[in-house]
Formats: sequence, C-alpha cells, structure tokens
Amino acid sequence: MRRRRSARGRARLGEVGEDALLASLLAELPAARKLIGGDCAVVEFSGAKDLLVLKTDCVVEKIHFQPTTDPELVGWKAMMRPLSDFAAVSAVPRFALVTLIVPATRSTSWVKKLYRGLKRAASPFDVTIVGGETSATRGAIVISVSVSGFVEKNRWVSRRGGRKGDDLFVTGKLGGSLRGKHLRFVPRIEASRWLTKNFRVRAMIDLSDGLGADLPRLARASRLGFKIDKDSLPLAPDAKIDNAISDGEDYELLFAISPRDRARLERAWRKKFPKLPLTRIGFLAQRGNNSTSQLLPRGYVHFQ
Amino acid sequence: MRRRRSARGRARLGEVGEDALLASLLAELPAARKLIGGDCAVVEFSGAKDLLVLKTDCVVEKIHFQPTTDPELVGWKAMMRPLSDFAAVSAVPRFALVTLIVPATRSTSWVKKLYRGLKRAASPFDVTIVGGETSATRGAIVISVSVSGFVEKNRWVSRRGGRKGDDLFVTGKLGGSLRGKHLRFVPRIEASRWLTKNFRVRAMIDLSDGLGADLPRLARASRLGFKIDKDSLPLAPDAKIDNAISDGEDYELLFAISPRDRARLERAWRKKFPKLPLTRIGFLAQRGNNSTSQLLPRGYVHFQ
Repeated sequence: MRRRRSARGRARLGEVGEDALLASLLAELPAARKLIGGDCAVVEFSGAKDLLVLKTDCVVEKIHFQPTTDPELVGWKAMMRPLSDFAAVSAVPRFALVTLIVPATRSTSWVKKLYRGLKRAASPFDVTIVGGETSATRGAIVISVSVSGFVEKNRWVSRRGGRKGDDLFVTGKLGGSLRGKHLRFVPRIEASRWLTKNFRVRAMIDLSDGLGADLPRLARASRLGFKIDKDSLPLAPDAKIDNAISDGEDYELLFAISPRDRARLERAWRKKFPKLPLTRIGFLAQRGNNSTSQLLPRGYVHFQ
Repeated sequence: MRRRRSARGRARLGEVGEDALLASLLAELPAARKLIGGDCAVVEFSGAKDLLVLKTDCVVEKIHFQPTTDPELVGWKAMMRPLSDFAAVSAVPRFALVTLIVPATRSTSWVKKLYRGLKRAASPFDVTIVGGETSATRGAIVISVSVSGFVEKNRWVSRRGGRKGDDLFVTGKLGGSLRGKHLRFVPRIEASRWLTKNFRVRAMIDLSDGLGADLPRLARASRLGFKIDKDSLPLAPDAKIDNAISDGEDYELLFAISPRDRARLERAWRKKFPKLPLTRIGFLAQRGNNSTSQLLPRGYVHFQ
C-alpha cells in the first residue's frame, strides 16, 4: 500500500511511528531530554540520597486487550507493564496511581475485578496504590498506571551504557506472548535487582515491543551496532525465530555486560534462578557496518 | 427517569458515581488509605526532607473537550488540571509524564499543537515533561498527565483539618467556566504557596467539580458541616448563584482558616493579589444539623 505523506506536519500518526513522534516532540524539550533514562524518567528529588524514578503506561481496549478479556488479567497487565520498565532501569517501584477511563455502561463488577487484578499485581512488589482517578468516556476503555519509586545512584542502568564487544543476554524465552503470557507475565524486577547488586550491567531494556524493535533501541542509545546469532534465541514453546524477534510483549530483560563477567554471571545465575533461562544471544559491535549490524524484522511498533 | 439497580455489584457505573466507586475500591486498600491526601497522594520518599506528592489526571474527548477544540487549549487544560490539585495541597509540581492515546488517523500537527499547549502550561510553573507514552486507539482521544513534586512537611494542607467555626474563603469568581475558562485557567499555585507560607490554612480543596460537590467533600473530610451565604458567592460575569454552585471546573481554591486570621488575611491578600478576589462565603459548622449544613445542589459528578 502506498504511504502518502502530505504537507509537512500533516502526516498521519500511523505513518510516523511512536519512536519518531516522541523523539520529535521531546527534542523540543532540552531541559527534559537529559533527564530521560529511556524506559523511565530518573531524576533527583529534594536532596534524597536515591533517585526518583517515574513511569506511566496504559492499556487500551481493542489494542492491548479485548472487550471479552478477563478484567482481572487486564488489571494485572496494566500494573505489570510499567513495573517491567522499572526492571529495565533496575529500580524499585513503590507507589502507583491508577486512571480508569470507562463507559458509564460498564458494570461495577467489571471494574472491581479490574482493581483486584491491579492489586494482585502490585502486592508481590510491595507497590501501594495511593490514588485513583476515573472518567467516563464514550470510547474505548483505557487504564493508565503511573508508578514512582527509587533507584540507588550507583545501580541505575539505562539503555545507553553499552560498550563495543559487550555480551548481550536475554532472560526467559521469547515469542508467542499473545497466546497468554502478555496477560500473565511477571516483570523481571527480582532478576534486575540481583544483577545490579552483583554485576556491572552496562545497558538494559525490557522487551516490550519485541527484540527486533528493542535491541536496535538499546544499540542506538549506546551508539553501537550489534550482531546476534538467531539460532541461539531462546524460544517459547511453539514459537519460531520470527516470533521471538517480532511478536513483542515478552517483558523479558535484554542487557549488555562485559564478556569478562560472562563465566561468573552464568554460574551465579544458574544457582540463583535455576528455572529462569539466561541466554547469550550475541554482542554489541561497531555501528554502521551492515555485516555486523544485522537488520532485524521490526518488532511491534505502535501506530504502524 | 427510573434508576434501576440490579443485583449487588452489577450496578452500572453511571448509577454509582465517582466518589462512591473510588471510596469502595480504595476502602479495600488499608495501607493506601492513610496515605491519600485527598486531591493528591502525599508520601515519604527515601529519607528526603520533603514529602513526595503525586497526582494523575486525564482529559477525554467528548467529555472534557470537543473534537473541534483547539488542541493547544486541550494540552493546556490537560496539564493544568493536575497542577490545580497541587495547588489544593500547597505543593510544588516538578515533573510531568504525558500519556497520549490517539487514533492513528489524527494528524501529527494536531499532536504537535497539543504538546505545545502542554509545554506552555508547564513552563510558568517550572514543570519539566520528563517522559511521554503514546498508544493508538480506535476510540476517543485521551490525554493523561501524571505530575510529581514536593511539599514541605509543615506546609502540606489536606481536606481534613477544618475546625468548627473556621471561615470558608474562595479565590476568584465562580460559575460559567464552560464559556471558556475551563480551557484557559491558571491553577492557584502561587496563591496557595503564599497562603501556607504566611498563614495556618487548616483545610483546602480546588473547585474542580463545583462548590456544590467540593464543599461537602471538604466538610465531610473534616467531619463537619457548613453554612454558606449564597448571596455572598463571587460570581463570574453572566453567572448566577446556581452556576457558581453547580457548573464546576472553576479551579479556584476553597479553604478553611481560623476567624482569628481573617482581618490579617484580607489585608495581606489585597496587597499581594490586588486583582484576584478573595471572598468569605461562610463557615464550617457542626455536622448533622440540617439548619446549619445546607443542602447544596450537586456540582458536576463524573458518571452522573
């Protein structure tokens, strides 16, 4: 299908894509730009010793869940998505605000089940829901969750610190999330906190849009390319390599770490997380060299 | 129209109302309840000397603005609404996260104008937009803004501290906001900060849903009733008393203060804010006495 772009600034959002749109909008915010840590905002707060970490995320009916999806699972997913971003920067989530936008014709029992899911998701991470906001709508249901928390200054990880030659690891298994995992996943906060307590993680991201979208983001933020061995990708049951690259919503961690730490990491990981796979899928390489920076099919990108 | 309520838990949201719904949901969160400061969540953060203040709010197409509304004004309103809640607790807003849920068919220029409005609103309050999130939708546009900031422990005001006999004051003029003010208002943060720097404000709320809804909230939170002189209400041009009580979206402050401070307050206010009216509209009284706690027509309540 031909993609038409009319006069400058008149392009439809669907033609631009989320990364480009956000980049263009945020580029006009010089003060903000340097504060943005990729997945989360990480800022100083009133002389506190730790950094304040902020993240908001939303799920939208017919985009992230279906009208018939169990509302408890919708609530679970709405809470866990921003928590997965906390895992990406190795932060500890503490407080959540929930905005619920729902047609007045929905039953209160649907909303109560949704909240049960939100609370069930928050509870194991000691996240407290400290406020709620509701609005009517004549459109699709939206649940937006804003989470704040902290990270120690010496444990914050961004997407940007990767170095040439760093090993690339992923947790868990990739692909096929839409068969159910996207509604039931557990953010890798425990693994992330353990990693930064014991290792120097140089760059990290959570795989929300798929390896094919998120790995280039991490590499680009680190001003590097990458080389991966597709045959090494850890595949979820019934998933193929393309699923692992393009499906999205894996909510696993992808991180870069010095190859000097490889042996100690793999040994300590197996002991600490015997049931959670950790897989080296490749390494960070010089940028702009097409023989080492393979083109990946793109993962899920909003608006496209 | 007959309002039918089916089996327990099956009531439609439109029959329940936002306050009742939130109260019922939050009542199940004992740990959270005591943290909730009314308009904002106010919590301790990592040993910082100030309190962390969190608030999220949203505007929804066809509910809070029309499809044809100037997007720059939509952005202004989306940012200013949570900032008005900061005024209510006398907090200083610092960081904002913006979630934009918009159909892919909207033009990028619409979104850019929206962001211009958000930034124009944030700028005078030194609020930095530190992150953004976008999602497609097949429904109504939603802009959700989460703001974090701080308040000194000795300056935080909630809805709950009112005492019997306290004077009730409102800033500005009330009523008729839909004629334009609801898209162009300036949150009363400067006034609120000045008040708590110079006076002991016992309880405060911002008038977002109208005096008829928000005054009872403040009184109820303080376990008191109230008596107001309707003829004293400061009316916006072309507004009548009923508009001042029921229209909503005034975004003025309503606060309770000891009558011992009345003369000093009125004198200092006129000097500091010569163009902004400050009006004593009544006082807080014993609860449960219908002769003193007048019933007000309700202000705007979501879902009703």
